[in-house]
Amino acid sequence: ALGAWGHPKSVDLTAEDVRNCLTSPPYLPVTVVNTTARLADLRHQMQIKNLSAYIIPETDAHMSEYIGTRDKRRAWMTGFTGSAGTAVVTIGKAGLWTDSRYWTQAERQMDCNWELHKEVDTTSIVIWLLAEVPVGGNVGFDPFLFSIGSWESYDMALINSNIKLVSITPNLVDQAWGSEKPLVLSQPIYALQEAFTGSTWQEKVSDIRSQMQKHPKAPTAILLSALDETAWLFNLRGSDIPYNPFFYSYTLLTNSSISLFVNKSCLNSETLKYLNSDCPGSMCVQVKDYSQVRHNVQAYASGNVKIWIGTSYTTYGLYEVIPKEKRIEDTYSPVMVTKAVKNSKEQALLKASHVRDAVAVIRYLVWLEKNVPKGTVDEFSGAELLNKFRGEEQFSSGPSFETISASGLNAALAHYSPTKEVHRKLSSDEMYLLDSGGQYWDGTTDITRTVHWGTPSAFQKEAYTRVLIGNIDLSRLVFPANTSGRMIEVFARRALWDVGLNYGHGTGHGIGNFLCVHEWPVGFQYGNIPMAKGMFTSIEPGYYQDGEFGIRLEDVVVVVEAKTKYPGSYLTFEVVSLVPYDRNLIDVSLLSPEQIQYLNHYYETIRKKVGPELQQRQLLEEFEWLQQHTEPLSAKAPHTTPLASLLAVFSLAIFSCSV
Amino acid sequence: ALGAWGHPKSVDLTAEDVRNCLTSPPYLPVTVVNTTARLADLRHQMQIKNLSAYIIPETDAHMSEYIGTRDKRRAWMTGFTGSAGTAVVTIGKAGLWTDSRYWTQAERQMDCNWELHKEVDTTSIVIWLLAEVPVGGNVGFDPFLFSIGSWESYDMALINSNIKLVSITPNLVDQAWGSEKPLVLSQPIYALQEAFTGSTWQEKVSDIRSQMQKHPKAPTAILLSALDETAWLFNLRGSDIPYNPFFYSYTLLTNSSISLFVNKSCLNSETLKYLNSDCPGSMCVQVKDYSQVRHNVQAYASGNVKIWIGTSYTTYGLYEVIPKEKRIEDTYSPVMVTKAVKNSKEQALLKASHVRDAVAVIRYLVWLEKNVPKGTVDEFSGAELLNKFRGEEQFSSGPSFETISASGLNAALAHYSPTKEVHRKLSSDEMYLLDSGGQYWDGTTDITRTVHWGTPSAFQKEAYTRVLIGNIDLSRLVFPANTSGRMIEVFARRALWDVGLNYGHGTGHGIGNFLCVHEWPVGFQYGNIPMAKGMFTSIEPGYYQDGEFGIRLEDVVVVVEAKTKYPGSYLTFEVVSLVPYDRNLIDVSLLSPEQIQYLNHYYETIRKKVGPELQQRQLLEEFEWLQQHTEPLSAKAPHTTPLASLLAVFSLAIFSCSV
Repeated sequence: ALGAWGHPKSVDLTAEDVRNCLTSPPYLPVTVVNTTARLADLRHQMQIKNLSAYIIPETDAHMSEYIGTRDKRRAWMTGFTGSAGTAVVTIGKAGLWTDSRYWTQAERQMDCNWELHKEVDTTSIVIWLLAEVPVGGNVGFDPFLFSIGSWESYDMALINSNIKLVSITPNLVDQAWGSEKPLVLSQPIYALQEAFTGSTWQEKVSDIRSQMQKHPKAPTAILLSALDETAWLFNLRGSDIPYNPFFYSYTLLTNSSISLFVNKSCLNSETLKYLNSDCPGSMCVQVKDYSQVRHNVQAYASGNVKIWIGTSYTTYGLYEVIPKEKRIEDTYSPVMVTKAVKNSKEQALLKASHVRDAVAVIRYLVWLEKNVPKGTVDEFSGAELLNKFRGEEQFSSGPSFETISASGLNAALAHYSPTKEVHRKLSSDEMYLLDSGGQYWDGTTDITRTVHWGTPSAFQKEAYTRVLIGNIDLSRLVFPANTSGRMIEVFARRALWDVGLNYGHGTGHGIGNFLCVHEWPVGFQYGNIPMAKGMFTSIEPGYYQDGEFGIRLEDVVVVVEAKTKYPGSYLTFEVVSLVPYDRNLIDVSLLSPEQIQYLNHYYETIRKKVGPELQQRQLLEEFEWLQQHTEPLSAKAPHTTPLASLLAVFSLAIFSCSV
Repeated sequence: ALGAWGHPKSVDLTAEDVRNCLTSPPYLPVTVVNTTARLADLRHQMQIKNLSAYIIPETDAHMSEYIGTRDKRRAWMTGFTGSAGTAVVTIGKAGLWTDSRYWTQAERQMDCNWELHKEVDTTSIVIWLLAEVPVGGNVGFDPFLFSIGSWESYDMALINSNIKLVSITPNLVDQAWGSEKPLVLSQPIYALQEAFTGSTWQEKVSDIRSQMQKHPKAPTAILLSALDETAWLFNLRGSDIPYNPFFYSYTLLTNSSISLFVNKSCLNSETLKYLNSDCPGSMCVQVKDYSQVRHNVQAYASGNVKIWIGTSYTTYGLYEVIPKEKRIEDTYSPVMVTKAVKNSKEQALLKASHVRDAVAVIRYLVWLEKNVPKGTVDEFSGAELLNKFRGEEQFSSGPSFETISASGLNAALAHYSPTKEVHRKLSSDEMYLLDSGGQYWDGTTDITRTVHWGTPSAFQKEAYTRVLIGNIDLSRLVFPANTSGRMIEVFARRALWDVGLNYGHGTGHGIGNFLCVHEWPVGFQYGNIPMAKGMFTSIEPGYYQDGEFGIRLEDVVVVVEAKTKYPGSYLTFEVVSLVPYDRNLIDVSLLSPEQIQYLNHYYETIRKKVGPELQQRQLLEEFEWLQQHTEPLSAKAPHTTPLASLLAVFSLAIFSCSV
């Protein structure tokens, strides 16, 4: 699955698709939401709190990547449903700031109450605030929706101004939203079976406490805000967030107590017993109500304590109640960093889920091969079928993100997903990109394959092969322990660069054991922590030809020790995803002997690991398909090297052979 | 030439070589300097200024890499002459902070007045200060020897303490040093002939002023503090700094005036005329005394002005006299950034200097080949001879840094240079590393070659070849315009990583036109600006086997546009250094056909560019040597690929040939 994507993409539009606020009356397409009443309600709330402006980000109180409907405040307020963007409302105006991916969508969904600002940095919002807010005016924000970093950047920018930044609870959009706001449905929280956990929660708590003890600044507690931190620590799962098996929660783990803040009614007696919730000791979990977290942290912070936090996932709402001298700040909490390295059981679990996931994907690819030529498959129905196949796998717990099932030119669009209403037919005449993943009790998966069932163009083959080379070259790289992913991701780009091609997104992200599909802080991006043995990350180079096609080849890999000729602490990757690439799109003459050798070795691994699974399940057609698609590739004579020319001469002069 | 080197290296020592402050009386080797009187003098000065501590960095008022004797205050004060390290003196104690490269040297040179702190970060100095300085005490520093960054880090660290950081001028060590301090010798400042400049100073001034006009924050002036900024802007050179043709100077360039702060007596009437120093207009240079810069900047800053500075090279001494709201801060000044991209004339000049430099290096290598087997050459006499050869080249102006001429195990030491007294004999039994460069009126050069005149071990050949592959792979890389060097330097390491080898220093640095041999902000390190067409940088991977040998292969390259198969804005490098590598050390079987092709192309270029120069100069033996050492290499059958095995079979079965 893709993270942030850098390049804007253009879409064909007609004037009727977007609003026109310059005509009188303004032209509004049917997709627009009328926000006049909502804005009036919000402004009423703002006046009660004496605010000249109110900032509305699209996030939740845990800095989650996917947020629940109840947290889509900016979407409700503006009508604009894109995943990135910030709204700011003053008494007289309303503005939305978003990036180029979403400009068109915003013009389709927002009414003329809203100005669209085609920028995203805090500076541009602040410049607007300085112009719109009267001297002495207050700018309100919900501290639970501000990361420490965003608070700091607003605070810094307004420091010498005549405008005051004011933390306001509870949320004013919620007040305006009122009874229309979706209820939080109480979904049960459950403990994972021991078979699916790397260690017990008691072992994890002891490990984190021992890290606290060893810390030179002597923290007395850690505060966990990210939903996957608490889920991981207690081996608990829920279903409050789409695609993520999480439940709304916080944890305050001190050296003598454990407080878990959740919706208490979601824990049944068995789970409460599992958590030792009825004792007062240091290994007993005190279950407290979710809404009490701020008050509890504040009370704890009044003592002689030091609270260790990861600033990336802590909101200003909790940060501001801890006195500065009582905070120990790291970018990521020790839970985040510990979770990043999977122990051997967790590794085995994640690998096992990838074998079954490969079965589902292979079943789908086999089915496509037969059905696409009939002209009966579209992007949406295809994705549905894939979900069905995944659902039939053992331990399945739904998709890990919204499937990107994109045919032809749609595959060049960032974050495209088909809908029941809008989708494209799959065809043997164009390429098809499938980026999808599953949640299983033993692991989270994420894989992208790109296929062509007809005759790809030479350029498509070349681009595909160069993307594949990038994937191979990064996967087989040997690098020193502790190297950051950011330093080595260029190996996934070199073969594309060579001919003037590139891609505008990151090269990969961490992944969890039945947790996040984009699990920080592992990966190849800025801010990721250095690579260490036992980390799992995706490797996903791509190439996108606007208006024509898109290619991405994504595998999940695990960081393993490399056995180098000379002794040293070196690492490399072992591929965990087990689905063959499309032979129809590989130009073997572009591959070096080492790349071919690597690929054939990977194919052997697929056969060894997935083959028996298919046989055992009587998926004989799929088994046959797998054998065909994992036949060893053999080198064709490349065109440019002396070696090869010599070889060609030999071949011609003496006998013909297929090398 | 090497920049910062990360790894500590061990040296064999006996107890007599280093001080022992634990015995009574302390044991002091003869290399130690007695600092008791100096410390008493300094403490007297501190008491006059009411200081509890005084910080003494080793730098000059221009943040120069090489500093003159008059600026070696920390060396004079402590006895320790290493190039990196900070001293701090309190009334009762004295401490030196330096990195692992220098720990032994410090123990050899410092008497027992000094504590050695084996750390370098500001934090560790501040922790010490907090323990040693009484509450309310003042910590003094010379603001002209503090970069803005170092001032900020001390200031930040002491902000909530009871200790005050106090900027003190003039320098207290100078007061203590008194008449013993070396005089600043008045070296003439001269204008470069027009043939050696890329543009006139008037053109450069106009260009910088036009950048000021286009700047959104509307600067009215720029302030130049780095010595090469002023030298570059006016096409002036001097000789105040060893290895660098610079003169102590500052420039305040406003939209209506130009002030040059120098030792006026170093400018003769011709140069004054060249600078239009006798008129009042905006294109006339007002020459002012070097010592007046702070006063002048402060006076200018009292007006309605905005001064644009590069924070990396501006000291706190000038920064503190400009009110915050009148500063426009960038990491590098526009002069620094403009200078980084050489125009076509500057490129031609730099390339020409490298042709002549290659002649000098080749003469030396030929001479070594004949004389080393006789056992009459040592590291020091060799370096002297190389200097002589460079000196005989047209436009020569001395070496661009102290030659690293290192035989055998010495080549594994960071920053090793032989002396007249201490050096090693060159031998056919060991490797020899030569890292050297010249200053010429048309360019600065820097090249490293490693050679072996006897029979290298298999490991030496492998390591050498892998270093060479790194050099080749980075040199031939095609990458998108605006990529930062830091992102791509891993290509120089991959072949070493593959077998568990690496090097602990950076991969390259910018270089100037008769300016700095380490010219910022170009290169492959953190803080370097993105690559652009016309930049020159070194590429210098290496490998070091402690106690045995060292390998480095360094070439200067220029960034050029890459012609890619598909259109796009891509760059690559063109190698400017023109000296063959040592064939004796290349294991051709490790090279890919593409690498061999690249290498042979490079050899052709050397023949084409250096060959005629040698012939014209009647250096026929050298010409012969060049032909031999640039014979095209041909692929040997590698061991692991199907292609190659097939080829081997062919060769054996049918006829034998040398491919």
